[in-house]
Amino acid sequence: MIIILKPGSTESEAKEILAHIESEGLRPLHMPGTERVVIGAIGDERILESLHFENYPQVERVTPILAPYKLVSREIHPHDTIVRLGGVSVGGDGFIVIAGPCAVESAEQMRDTARAVKSAGAHALRGGAFKPRTSPYSFQGLGRAGLKILQEIGREFGMPVVTEIVDTADIDEIAEHADALQVGARNMQNFRLLQALGKCGKPVVLKRGIAATIQDLLLAAEYIVAEGNAEVILCERGIKTFETATRNTLDLNAVPYIKQKTHLPIIVDPSHGTGVRELVPAMSRAAVACGADGLIIEVHRDPPHALSDGQQSLFPDEFAALMHGLKPFVEASGKTL
Amino acid sequence: MIIILKPGSTESEAKEILAHIESEGLRPLHMPGTERVVIGAIGDERILESLHFENYPQVERVTPILAPYKLVSREIHPHDTIVRLGGVSVGGDGFIVIAGPCAVESAEQMRDTARAVKSAGAHALRGGAFKPRTSPYSFQGLGRAGLKILQEIGREFGMPVVTEIVDTADIDEIAEHADALQVGARNMQNFRLLQALGKCGKPVVLKRGIAATIQDLLLAAEYIVAEGNAEVILCERGIKTFETATRNTLDLNAVPYIKQKTHLPIIVDPSHGTGVRELVPAMSRAAVACGADGLIIEVHRDPPHALSDGQQSLFPDEFAALMHGLKPFVEASGKTL
Amino acid sequence: MIIILKPGSTESEAKEILAHIESEGLRPLHMPGTERVVIGAIGDERILESLHFENYPQVERVTPILAPYKLVSREIHPHDTIVRLGGVSVGGDGFIVIAGPCAVESAEQMRDTARAVKSAGAHALRGGAFKPRTSPYSFQGLGRAGLKILQEIGREFGMPVVTEIVDTADIDEIAEHADALQVGARNMQNFRLLQALGKCGKPVVLKRGIAATIQDLLLAAEYIVAEGNAEVILCERGIKTFETATRNTLDLNAVPYIKQKTHLPIIVDPSHGTGVRELVPAMSRAAVACGADGLIIEVHRDPPHALSDGQQSLFPDEFAALMHGLKPFVEASGKTL
Amino acid sequence: MIIILKPGSTESEAKEILAHIESEGLRPLHMPGTERVVIGAIGDERILESLHFENYPQVERVTPILAPYKLVSREIHPHDTIVRLGGVSVGGDGFIVIAGPCAVESAEQMRDTARAVKSAGAHALRGGAFKPRTSPYSFQGLGRAGLKILQEIGREFGMPVVTEIVDTADIDEIAEHADALQVGARNMQNFRLLQALGKCGKPVVLKRGIAATIQDLLLAAEYIVAEGNAEVILCERGIKTFETATRNTLDLNAVPYIKQKTHLPIIVDPSHGTGVRELVPAMSRAAVACGADGLIIEVHRDPPHALSDGQQSLFPDEFAALMHGLKPFVEASGKTL
Repeated sequence: MIIILKPGSTESEAKEILAHIESEGLRPLHMPGTERVVIGAIGDERILESLHFENYPQVERVTPILAPYKLVSREIHPHDTIVRLGGVSVGGDGFIVIAGPCAVESAEQMRDTARAVKSAGAHALRGGAFKPRTSPYSFQGLGRAGLKILQEIGREFGMPVVTEIVDTADIDEIAEHADALQVGARNMQNFRLLQALGKCGKPVVLKRGIAATIQDLLLAAEYIVAEGNAEVILCERGIKTFETATRNTLDLNAVPYIKQKTHLPIIVDPSHGTGVRELVPAMSRAAVACGADGLIIEVHRDPPHALSDGQQSLFPDEFAALMHGLKPFVEASGKTL
Repeated sequence: MIIILKPGSTESEAKEILAHIESEGLRPLHMPGTERVVIGAIGDERILESLHFENYPQVERVTPILAPYKLVSREIHPHDTIVRLGGVSVGGDGFIVIAGPCAVESAEQMRDTARAVKSAGAHALRGGAFKPRTSPYSFQGLGRAGLKILQEIGREFGMPVVTEIVDTADIDEIAEHADALQVGARNMQNFRLLQALGKCGKPVVLKRGIAATIQDLLLAAEYIVAEGNAEVILCERGIKTFETATRNTLDLNAVPYIKQKTHLPIIVDPSHGTGVRELVPAMSRAAVACGADGLIIEVHRDPPHALSDGQQSLFPDEFAALMHGLKPFVEASGKTL
Repeated sequence: MIIILKPGSTESEAKEILAHIESEGLRPLHMPGTERVVIGAIGDERILESLHFENYPQVERVTPILAPYKLVSREIHPHDTIVRLGGVSVGGDGFIVIAGPCAVESAEQMRDTARAVKSAGAHALRGGAFKPRTSPYSFQGLGRAGLKILQEIGREFGMPVVTEIVDTADIDEIAEHADALQVGARNMQNFRLLQALGKCGKPVVLKRGIAATIQDLLLAAEYIVAEGNAEVILCERGIKTFETATRNTLDLNAVPYIKQKTHLPIIVDPSHGTGVRELVPAMSRAAVACGADGLIIEVHRDPPHALSDGQQSLFPDEFAALMHGLKPFVEASGKTL
Repeated sequence: MIIILKPGSTESEAKEILAHIESEGLRPLHMPGTERVVIGAIGDERILESLHFENYPQVERVTPILAPYKLVSREIHPHDTIVRLGGVSVGGDGFIVIAGPCAVESAEQMRDTARAVKSAGAHALRGGAFKPRTSPYSFQGLGRAGLKILQEIGREFGMPVVTEIVDTADIDEIAEHADALQVGARNMQNFRLLQALGKCGKPVVLKRGIAATIQDLLLAAEYIVAEGNAEVILCERGIKTFETATRNTLDLNAVPYIKQKTHLPIIVDPSHGTGVRELVPAMSRAAVACGADGLIIEVHRDPPHALSDGQQSLFPDEFAALMHGLKPFVEASGKTL
């Protein structure tokens, strides 16, 4: 940790901080320059972070040396983690596609959609039972009944199912019905929820928050892993920027960057990442090409009548075409679909 | 609601949508132009929103006419809402200051800080018992014990107390100990929590999310009011932008804009809005000048040893100077401090 | 154009605007609703735009129906424009790679780099003679001397050359030495420069500004085309967001979106789009996969000693590996490298 | 300067960099930690910056100790610079208001507007002759004729005049007619223009770019001052964010931050900073309260018929009311209007 003092700081102010560092059992380093005094503190940075040197009025800036996450870091755990989603492996040499509607609306809607995505080659089924919606007047999901439908249809078609969790109170129930629990963008920093998911015994799909840096995402994953659950699948789904032509800006830079920094698998959600049906196939191919481990895509049997996210949901035949078009890119990347 | 069709849309596609509008009991309006077909739908827009015309492949864009929030709108309720925070009125002609540490650390820390902010003129006391922290290795708050300390110190100094809620499971307990429940920026779209707060019987301080538009904030407030709790105090606390010199970009434009659109009071948090101790006094004055109803400011008896947010917490004497400097601006704005 | 009046607008206010519309020879449409008066104006929107109805105090909002650009729009010109960059075609079925250093530093540096990128398969050579730099103390380019070196080395290796223009005063000189003139992100809205380039007789590579929406980029291209130069190559090179792990956020969504809206070719700059050498290969593949027509990549014979942008410049062997790895993706996309 | 090596860096890699530092006459500092090797380089950082240690593949990150600007820094020049704008002082104890239309449209329009703003108390007159417009189909200004009108009307009312410069080719002509040259947001990083303005002999109003950090703004000012012109007035005018309710997000945090870092005066443009007429008065007051040295405000004699920026231009009586309402806030801040 590097501590830069403000111009005009006195020697006694520097000594106060040096003594503070030493009293914590760390090695202080004094580097007085011509224009600034710089202080180093050598040792375990996470102890140092709890010391909060930036709180001193004479400190201009504190620069950490290490990333603040540890368990999810590739430095600690160099090999790729493979997460088991039902019978499907996520991470490693395969490429997986999770598909389905934004929300579970009825058994028929789920059955028709599941049949379509299964026959097009999807590996797992998505569908929300508890829907977080920006407006209180929008459809909020079928709740418990939706969970049961999702589970039944998943079994009927032999596909593992993924569904969103929005409240710690629902964990046991969802964990009973789903193969993986998804944390939506709005809850990425719902830390109580993350801690509870660390003990839920099921894989977690952790979506990046719309204003979350990559480091924030990895720290959110660290919350889950620190509680004992290493089965975390990261998901890039677009961030909030000034661009309004698309619903979000899909940050694919994050995929190779995250692959360098962490051993966890990462998938991409081009549906939310663009918010525009016509852009989903191109961005799905781009996700493959930059090294993602999979995709999560919204498909609805009848998008014009979908109760949520219809404008970004693919028609079944569009999804089949997407899967067909994806193949040569998955092969080019040395993986199998 | 205005529905713009894609170039090349056929007449039968337009008719399909016109029929859909009519079948819902609304008045359709057909406006074929030279380059685009435009369709209007006249009637209650919230019914229309649930129709999701943007889902049709031939639709290019849908433009609503009305704001999606209703109960919080000044159009429905033209007069300012005055929220009672303990014995203090928020909104209207007064200007209130809520001050205290980021987190409750001990009874002594709370007592010293409360004494300081009270004697400087603060009207209410803040302090977090449950702390959402970006890193799992940071201090997470004292929890239940912290709540009790906060309540006791508030009573000792005759100040209403405000504290953060991070999980629906804690509502009853917090509502028992605090005069108002604060929803932090990370939970602004935790809709389950908002709905539960709509029934908690206590005022809610609702902070704007770091990636939330003003409209998102008003819709979050609508969630609470729609459940029956009209005692909502909005809080502008900075948004996430590319600027890194400050922790957030305090969006004071939001204050007069919100005053136009809604009847709810709005306060400003210059501590999170800047993240820099030295900028807090100037931005507090700016908040007064642009029409805010109050401030929420982090103050700690000993910021260098604060367990969280120390770098943006004021020393007691800095807070006293801020309050003193605020007075002429509050007077200039025709309010009383 | 749809004009939405504020609540409480009077009938005479509506009539004033309706009369204004009619007096311009357009067809007004009056749509009084229960909560708002909506006015339509049917006819050529660009006349309408010059009327500025949003200026009226009683107007809440104006919604255009058509995009504000025309000549660059695919609606007007449905077929892909193929731009001739020296002997190389940009757009259509080929995929081109422009490579070279950020700045021309010396003839030897250019020769070594050109040899390397040529033998790896690059189609054109880049190199800046006039460098816009954030700090006045950074290397500003060799100027005129750099232009000559670039031209000579281009001829020596049979590669067309692309270089940046930063001032209208330099157009003739650069157009004499280079096969295409590049407008950097900082000058994308230097409209005087764009207008002058509309008459320069050479292709223009137009980079997206870091805060420019896609629509802003297309309007900037419209400036050039409106002056008579249809040889414009758009370039996505990343936008400014809150993410700091990468220098910019490469917005690949823009590629398929732009392909829908315009007939101009679009290339991607993964060097500036990431700012991180290690991320360039993955994002180059992603650019191919989402439908870009080419890449522009920074390569230096000796990046640690580069005078600018060294941290994002590839070593020659890294570039050769990138080109090798690109091939299967270009083939998967049905193009030839 | 602190150089952090990647994990796994070898001792010989560290030695290479240490030798490089020493060979430049600087003092290297080797700080091997348990998880990272950290290298310090002590001496003049601007020499160090030209060394570009981030270019080495084994370097993870480079952290400068000092700000990259020097001449504009308060560390070098602690006292406030007072800029003379015609007979008006900008900076120090006064508070100045520059007002006028976005664009010069005619002598009558300028005369009527000047009369109104002068009688309301404005100190200087603004008006654009060369207008940078996002669309090529928008009004581009009267050019040379507009300059002459502006100068004449300024003389008639005894007000100094400010106008925008968009091309180096126009400097002499504008400097002859105007008392200060304004660099618009789109040209803040037009470095050739900045350098030319450094020799123009007139004060420069330098507006912050919509994607420029505060540091970028100060470096742009450094370009001008480094060429010999210390008469720079900075201008905060809003940045681009995700918020769409306002045209830009006015970043008032920048005002007190800039006051700390630099000796140059800073004014605020609430017209562009909000883009909404109704928000201009409140944000003008906020600018005073946070310590700005002045305001630049768009006023038009007849906003509904303005050729540009009408929706954010004040009516003359609105401006008079704004000036009246500003007075108690200017007094509260200890300045005189």
